[in-house]
Amino acid sequence: MFVNTFYFQPADCDSLKKFKDRIDIEYHSRSVGYYHLPNSEFKVIEDVKDWQNSLENIDSVVIVGVGGSSLGAKAVSTMLTCDKKFGTPNLFFLENIDPISINATLAKLKFSKTLFLLISKSGTTLDTVSIAKIIMERFKVYPENKEFKEHFAVITDKNSALCEFANEYGLKAFFISQNVGGRFSVLSATGLVPLTLCGFNTEALLEGAAKCKSDFFEKGDMTIIQKAYTYVNGEENINVLFSYSNAFKAFNEWYIQLWAESLGKKKGGKNIGLTPIGLIGAIDQHSFLQLIIDGPKDKSVTFIRIKEMKGDMSIPNFSLKHLEKADLKSSISAAKLLNEQALATMKSVIDSGITTDEITLDKLDAYHTGYLIYYYELLTSTCGIMLGIDSYNQPGVEIGKKILIKKLGKYVNAAKKL
Amino acid sequence: MFVNTFYFQPADCDSLKKFKDRIDIEYHSRSVGYYHLPNSEFKVIEDVKDWQNSLENIDSVVIVGVGGSSLGAKAVSTMLTCDKKFGTPNLFFLENIDPISINATLAKLKFSKTLFLLISKSGTTLDTVSIAKIIMERFKVYPENKEFKEHFAVITDKNSALCEFANEYGLKAFFISQNVGGRFSVLSATGLVPLTLCGFNTEALLEGAAKCKSDFFEKGDMTIIQKAYTYVNGEENINVLFSYSNAFKAFNEWYIQLWAESLGKKKGGKNIGLTPIGLIGAIDQHSFLQLIIDGPKDKSVTFIRIKEMKGDMSIPNFSLKHLEKADLKSSISAAKLLNEQALATMKSVIDSGITTDEITLDKLDAYHTGYLIYYYELLTSTCGIMLGIDSYNQPGVEIGKKILIKKLGKYVNAAKKL
Repeated sequence: MFVNTFYFQPADCDSLKKFKDRIDIEYHSRSVGYYHLPNSEFKVIEDVKDWQNSLENIDSVVIVGVGGSSLGAKAVSTMLTCDKKFGTPNLFFLENIDPISINATLAKLKFSKTLFLLISKSGTTLDTVSIAKIIMERFKVYPENKEFKEHFAVITDKNSALCEFANEYGLKAFFISQNVGGRFSVLSATGLVPLTLCGFNTEALLEGAAKCKSDFFEKGDMTIIQKAYTYVNGEENINVLFSYSNAFKAFNEWYIQLWAESLGKKKGGKNIGLTPIGLIGAIDQHSFLQLIIDGPKDKSVTFIRIKEMKGDMSIPNFSLKHLEKADLKSSISAAKLLNEQALATMKSVIDSGITTDEITLDKLDAYHTGYLIYYYELLTSTCGIMLGIDSYNQPGVEIGKKILIKKLGKYVNAAKKL
Repeated sequence: MFVNTFYFQPADCDSLKKFKDRIDIEYHSRSVGYYHLPNSEFKVIEDVKDWQNSLENIDSVVIVGVGGSSLGAKAVSTMLTCDKKFGTPNLFFLENIDPISINATLAKLKFSKTLFLLISKSGTTLDTVSIAKIIMERFKVYPENKEFKEHFAVITDKNSALCEFANEYGLKAFFISQNVGGRFSVLSATGLVPLTLCGFNTEALLEGAAKCKSDFFEKGDMTIIQKAYTYVNGEENINVLFSYSNAFKAFNEWYIQLWAESLGKKKGGKNIGLTPIGLIGAIDQHSFLQLIIDGPKDKSVTFIRIKEMKGDMSIPNFSLKHLEKADLKSSISAAKLLNEQALATMKSVIDSGITTDEITLDKLDAYHTGYLIYYYELLTSTCGIMLGIDSYNQPGVEIGKKILIKKLGKYVNAAKKL
């Protein structure tokens, strides 16, 4: 079960119906592709499984991709570490043109047992192609070599440059629909291919997302619309996600990209947007919490917690001499203490007059993960519609790219032909 | 070399002298202990090295501690991964009462080769003591057992409950001065003990910090004061650290704790504070950057980049068929491309009218790391003085703790005596 509880007074549902109508229009227009992924993408999973039978001896899958091409799979795989099937390949990420992290990751890989997934919607992301070249040079395997196509595959838009590259050299290619934006693409091939290869239950992931889709579009659950309305119209312009478990670390990063890149936009010369912050509980009770409680009242907080956690253990009910102050009334489990910490912190936040809500997941499995992901995608789209902006573009990041191209001569093809 | 360049008009130094005087008073009062650590703590390193000779066969050191007890060592060890001496123990962290992360970490350890450092200033941090009990139960080694003192040590305040516990069972104990706050304690035993044990050059770390101290207190460098003044008096209430390299991930977390917990305070009934955000370049150019450029103008940005990076590699100067758009003018290194990305992004941020500055480190070694850490500690203290708040307490987080105690009965000693 997925439950979102508000500790604020939400707007009346009737007054918000007009926003639901607008989302319905966007949904039915099919201009925004991610809405439909929970139903359309089971065939990708089948395709991966068929293909996987032909892959021999692969124990490592490496995503070479940045932003929306890597964050989704990272979020899901980190949340579902406990659910990974034994003996399936490990998942790695090359997402930064940073020699320190590239060396650290490559040192862990044996080329003969590794599959590199080059992921880029446009197909010519500078960092991604540059890292791919470094990999080829490091292992001395180039597109002309026989083993190349056994160790490289691509995920991209149909007809992109990367798709043509794959065709040229006979690489396996998976496709993202043109109308699915990078940061909304985790439930497309972008996420499903690596996650399926690495033994995660991607069918259940899609099923969870499909349940959220049906709750929203068919059953008319207004929770997301009420929450978005509170965010868009409240005084607070910072939205904190306080996620209780280290397993949410990459999910927080995924949320930050989704929220920041979708909702930070210019509109008629005005700069608008909501600022995302991701925290991990209980750790950040000893860090950011002080600022939430005593700092400026510019933040809303959403607590996420998991009721039953895999591998939960008892905190032994013995007392250590001189440390009796840290004893508990009775023996409880670690997950119980973590949940109680979340509840106590949440109460202190609510009592400080901060706009607060709480998401509880019965457990952290693929189904609940799919639900949560789709929920946040819908929430983002709804906020975008209420703000009157285009949530699916990112014009602001193009300026820096142009400056870089001018300096480094991208598009000036002076490189040696292989 | 450490250089901080402003791309904004700072206030005139003469007008800021009064703030320098106030910091000097705080410094000379010796009420705030961290100021003096770069000179006083070399003896801790010697003590660790002497003790280490008596430790047999340890290949893993585990920090059991939360917030200020873990974030500093995590920041430094992550920054200096490339500098770690071969054959020295690996460093692990148990910082969350989260069964998923506890199981994942404990599964990597062999008890007979592991040293657990229980770190808590107060000595009775609930999470830390609870995790310690879980460790004891998991490995069936309790304080009464002979091998206990070979595998557990403590870092705490003198005379704390944890200190008494150590005395009771003959554990090695290292001490943090009473006047050194947790989040300012990385250059005390809190950070120096684990980092020295794991083969990091902690002498150079202190030397770098001592250089920053001398630049500020003796040579009268006003950069920090100018920067703090701009932050405290500017329109922006969010301070973004955009750090170029995955190596800065934990440093960003450390910065967030330092900034948020020190500068988010109530003052005369008013809620004041500055909100920290940590980003990693180039990754977050594909995430948060859009919001910085097109979103509300409520953010300042500091870029941190490393000029020369260890293990740097060339991006091969060949062209891949159909991917020619991602070719570069000439063969450059990964670090060069990363730096050029930082510069291009920085220019786009400056051109958007955002308060921007840039820190360049010649390289990422222990010396520069020590300088950077002390620099940010001084910057935090200076902002606190300008805001007229106490940067060294955290009253806001006590409310949640009290609620938890009420519920779980901490202080109600119902546990079995061992």
